[in-house]
Amino acid sequence: MADGTREEKLKRINESIRAFPDFPTKGILFRDICPILKDPKSLTAVIDLFEDYVRQKHQDVDLIVGLDARGFLFGPLLAQRLGIGFVLVRKKGKLPGPTVSVAYDLEYGKAEAEIQEDAVAPGQKVLLIDDLLATGGTLNAACALLKKQQADIVGCVVVVELKDLNGADKIKPHTVFSLVQY
Amino acid sequence: MADGTREEKLKRINESIRAFPDFPTKGILFRDICPILKDPKSLTAVIDLFEDYVRQKHQDVDLIVGLDARGFLFGPLLAQRLGIGFVLVRKKGKLPGPTVSVAYDLEYGKAEAEIQEDAVAPGQKVLLIDDLLATGGTLNAACALLKKQQADIVGCVVVVELKDLNGADKIKPHTVFSLVQY
Repeated sequence: MADGTREEKLKRINESIRAFPDFPTKGILFRDICPILKDPKSLTAVIDLFEDYVRQKHQDVDLIVGLDARGFLFGPLLAQRLGIGFVLVRKKGKLPGPTVSVAYDLEYGKAEAEIQEDAVAPGQKVLLIDDLLATGGTLNAACALLKKQQADIVGCVVVVELKDLNGADKIKPHTVFSLVQY
Repeated sequence: MADGTREEKLKRINESIRAFPDFPTKGILFRDICPILKDPKSLTAVIDLFEDYVRQKHQDVDLIVGLDARGFLFGPLLAQRLGIGFVLVRKKGKLPGPTVSVAYDLEYGKAEAEIQEDAVAPGQKVLLIDDLLATGGTLNAACALLKKQQADIVGCVVVVELKDLNGADKIKPHTVFSLVQY
């Protein structure tokens, strides 16, 4: 836990996010969360605010599920704070052993999200985490995967939410908690 | 910090690593570290032992540099324990803004490792982290990247080292600290 109010923590996180126009393609304004990781106080603030949210709203969560690759940066930190386990959702072909996968559409083409078959037990309460919510395609696929495994999805948390892209609508009825909105 | 001796922690970590034959291709015995993440005590033990090592050997480290994607699972945790920043090395095309990259050979074909140009300042002491050392191709490319940025590489840490593949030789003169060896 870092010192400071919720507002001070949000201010520090906000100041640690950079914008790069035309990345990865023309017309996209890319929100870069790398400076959060480089500033230990900013990263602590992110995990503090996620922890506060989970302890207030989802005290009974069993597992944190993080999305490949930037969800891996925040998920294990949150899981350790809560004293619970962390499970990986990866791009197809990266996880060994029996897996379950779900295909989803990208802007161009298709992708598949995958989880190990024994990663989550039926009825376990899971919270999903990623760095950023844009159109919600990947997060929605991860939710579908977890439903397939009969997990109980309590919600999703992200650092940044791009409101204009309406990703939260795609994830409904699950809720998305975000720290910074554009 | 978890309870228990160094030996007890290593035992717990060892018991959390599974082996899958013929993954990702025939003849490869894949060491799966996912169960470490799922067991909060095992993950705490990993970070405890990394922290002990860094505090004993590299007290003056400025930044932890983690490799895409499984280095992201452990790196931010270690960086937070030490109260320092975390920097990402990614596959080419994933990082916005001015970047520096280094090409390296894979078993079939080539890949490129990339870092943001302003991620590390000349002379900064950096410690690299990944989940597993096999042939050392990616870790060696990351070292080359950091040298290009005139960083001072103090060493590398990995959870698992596959000794038969002699990856540590490829990283010389830099040292590799590993928790579990096969």
